[in-house]
Amino acid sequence: MINGNFAVAQSGGPTAAINASLCGVICEALRNDRKIYGMLNGVTGAIDDNFADLGKIFDNTQNLKLLKNTPAAFLGSCRYRLPDFDGKCDIYERIFENFASKNITMAIYIGGNDSMDTVMKLCAYAQKHKKNVLFAGVPKTIDNDLVGTDHTPGFGSAAKFVASAISEIARDCAVYADRSATVVEIMGRNAGWLTAASALARSSTSSAPHLIYLPERPLSRSKMIEDIKNCRARNIVIAVSEGIKNENGEYYSNLDCNSGHDKFGHAQLCGSAKVVENIIKENFGIKTRSVELNVLQRCSSHFASLTDLDEAEMIGAFGVKALLSGNTGIVAGFERIKEYEVKPIINDVLKVANFEKTVPDSFIAENGYDVTEKAIEYLRPLILGEPQIEMENGIPKHIAL
Amino acid sequence: MINGNFAVAQSGGPTAAINASLCGVICEALRNDRKIYGMLNGVTGAIDDNFADLGKIFDNTQNLKLLKNTPAAFLGSCRYRLPDFDGKCDIYERIFENFASKNITMAIYIGGNDSMDTVMKLCAYAQKHKKNVLFAGVPKTIDNDLVGTDHTPGFGSAAKFVASAISEIARDCAVYADRSATVVEIMGRNAGWLTAASALARSSTSSAPHLIYLPERPLSRSKMIEDIKNCRARNIVIAVSEGIKNENGEYYSNLDCNSGHDKFGHAQLCGSAKVVENIIKENFGIKTRSVELNVLQRCSSHFASLTDLDEAEMIGAFGVKALLSGNTGIVAGFERIKEYEVKPIINDVLKVANFEKTVPDSFIAENGYDVTEKAIEYLRPLILGEPQIEMENGIPKHIAL
Repeated sequence: MINGNFAVAQSGGPTAAINASLCGVICEALRNDRKIYGMLNGVTGAIDDNFADLGKIFDNTQNLKLLKNTPAAFLGSCRYRLPDFDGKCDIYERIFENFASKNITMAIYIGGNDSMDTVMKLCAYAQKHKKNVLFAGVPKTIDNDLVGTDHTPGFGSAAKFVASAISEIARDCAVYADRSATVVEIMGRNAGWLTAASALARSSTSSAPHLIYLPERPLSRSKMIEDIKNCRARNIVIAVSEGIKNENGEYYSNLDCNSGHDKFGHAQLCGSAKVVENIIKENFGIKTRSVELNVLQRCSSHFASLTDLDEAEMIGAFGVKALLSGNTGIVAGFERIKEYEVKPIINDVLKVANFEKTVPDSFIAENGYDVTEKAIEYLRPLILGEPQIEMENGIPKHIAL
Repeated sequence: MINGNFAVAQSGGPTAAINASLCGVICEALRNDRKIYGMLNGVTGAIDDNFADLGKIFDNTQNLKLLKNTPAAFLGSCRYRLPDFDGKCDIYERIFENFASKNITMAIYIGGNDSMDTVMKLCAYAQKHKKNVLFAGVPKTIDNDLVGTDHTPGFGSAAKFVASAISEIARDCAVYADRSATVVEIMGRNAGWLTAASALARSSTSSAPHLIYLPERPLSRSKMIEDIKNCRARNIVIAVSEGIKNENGEYYSNLDCNSGHDKFGHAQLCGSAKVVENIIKENFGIKTRSVELNVLQRCSSHFASLTDLDEAEMIGAFGVKALLSGNTGIVAGFERIKEYEVKPIINDVLKVANFEKTVPDSFIAENGYDVTEKAIEYLRPLILGEPQIEMENGIPKHIAL
C-alpha cells in the first residue's frame, strides 16, 4: 500500500453530487489513517498553497452527512487550465513542492471532462519529472458526457430534477382550456443526455414532454413546425437542449451571448428555448412561454437522486482505494450490472480526458423528437430514491467552509 | 343548516396548494353527505354545464392524498371575467339553471384577487334575482396580496421554494474565486411578498441574498449601482421582483412583452432580472447571470410547505362549513394567533375583491434593499414542514382528471 497523505480538489461546474464524492474521499482517507487536504478552488489551491485540513472539519458524521446533501463544490471550483509543458515548468513545480511539504503522495481530482485534462497533465508531469505523487480522477458532471463510464455522478440528480420539474410544469400548463405551448430549455451543450431525461417526466397521468429535441440531431425550422402541427396535445410541452442546431449546424440560441467562447473554447450558449418560443408564436399564434431550468437543474440538492448520491460517495471512496493500491493516471467509472447495480472500474485518463460521449443513435427515436424505450430503461434507475434532508428553519441545511 | 349540494371551482394562476384546498372542500362536503360537483375550468364550467362528480373520483383517501400533493388546478382554471350586469343576464341565468339542475345551493370559488370578483358578482346576481345559491371564496395566490387575511394559501409553498432555491443558487455562485453577480427574478407584479421571502434563504452559512428589491420601493439605477458597489460579498446574489420600477414609476422589465396587458388589465411583465443583469455588466464588468424562477415557484409541489398545505386544506373545509351555516358573499381568511397558529375567519367579499395588499413599510428596511426582522418573523412560520410525497418511478406521483 502506498504511504503518505491525500489531496483532493473539485473542479468545473457544480452539481448536487460532487460533495457526496468528496464525502466518500474524506471518509476513505480517514479510515486509512491518512491526512486529507482539500485544495481550495481546484488546482489553483495547490498552486497557491491554499489547502484545508479536511480531517479537522469532518471529524463527525453529522458534518459528513451535511456535506453529502450540500449542493455545489464545498472546496470551491476553478476553470483554470494547466499549461502545456515540455521541460520543467514553474507552476507544476510549485504544485509538487506544496504537495511534498504535506507529504501528499496521492491526489484526487473530482471533475468533468475538462478536469480530467488536469489529471492527465499532472500525472504526465509527475512521471516525466520523477515526482512521487499518484493521480486519480473521480468523474462528476450533470452532462453525463464522459467516456469510459456507464454514467457520471451528478447526472442522476440533475435528471431527477429535470423530470420532476417538467412533470410539475406540465400540470401548470394544463390548467387552461386554450391551446398553448411551453418550451423548457435544458443544459447540455453537445450531449443531450439531460434533455433525454425529460422523458422520465411522463407518467400514467401525463404524456409531457410531447416533443424532445436533442443536440445530436439537426432540427430544421420546418420540421419543428411540422412536429408541432402534428402534436395532438392541447398544452404542448417541448423539451429542448440548450445546444440544438439547425440543418446547417447553426445553434438556435445566439452563438456568443457575451464573449462567444469560454476558456475551454466551447461556445457560451443561451436562449434556445426563447428562439423556439418565438418561432411558435410567429407560426401558431398560441400562448407560448419558455422556461430555462438554468442552474437549478445542477444545484437542486433538496430533490437529489439518492442512487446518484450513494454512487457518488462510493466512487469517491473507490478513487482513494485505487490510489492506495498504486494506480495513477486513472479515472474511476461505473460499469452497469444488470437489474441495476453498478461496479466501480478504472480507466486510463488518456482514454477519458477531452473525449465526449453523446447520446447514441439507439436512444434517439426515428421521428427525431423523442427517445427510445432503451433510453428510458437506461435512464430510469439513475433517478430513483430521495435522500433524507436535514432542514433548518424551513430550508435545507448546508455546510460551508 | 342549508340543504342541497355543493359546487366548487378553481381559478387564476396555479399554486402548489390550490388542490389541498379542493381536498378540504371535497372531504367536508362528503362528510356532510352532500354531493360535490367540480366546475371544470372555473366559472366557465358552470356556464357550459361542464361538471365532474368529485365524490365518485375521490371515494378513497389515497386519491385525496395524491390530490393534496398535486400542483396546479385539478379542475382546470380560467381567466374569464363575468360581465357586469344590470337586469337579467343570459350568462348568469345559465349558471343558475345548471346549478338548479344539480340541486347546487352552495358554491365555493378557490382563487385569487380576480377570482373574488367572480364570487362578488355571482353573489350580487343571486341576491338581486332571488337565486337560492350561497357563495364563498377560498383564497389562494402565491402573491399573498389579498386583504382580510394574514396570508394566502399557496404563498407559503412558493416562499419555501424561493428561499430554498436561492440558498442552493447561492452555493452554486460561490464556487468560483472571481467576483460575480447573480440576479434572481421572483414573481409578484405589484406586491413584493414573495421577493421578501427570499430573505429566508439566509442561514448561519450564507448571507445571500445580499440585496432584495421589492416593487413597493422605487429603485433608481444609480442607487442600485451604489448598493452593488457597497456590497462586500464576493459572489453577490440579488433578489428582484418582476415588478421593480425606477424613480419615474417605469418598470425595469419591458412593459408589454407581448400584448402589453392581460385580460384583467395588468401589465404582462418579463425580464426585470435580465435588465438588472445588463446594468451590472455595463457598470462592473464582472461575471453576471440572471435566473428567472418562472413557473417553478408556483408549481413545485415536490417541495411544498406542509404548514401551507395543511392550512389550505383546513380553509377549504372551513368554506364548506361557513356555507352550511348560511353565510354568503364571503371570503375565508386567516387570523394569526401568537406563537404561530392560525384561526379561520370570514370576510365580506366586497372588502376583499379587487383590493390588493402590498408589503407594509414596517417590513421594508430603510436602506431599500432588505426586509426587516419583523418581516422575517412574519414569513418564517409559513414555510415550515415538508409533506410526505408519494413517488413513482423517481418522480412525484400526481392525480389528474
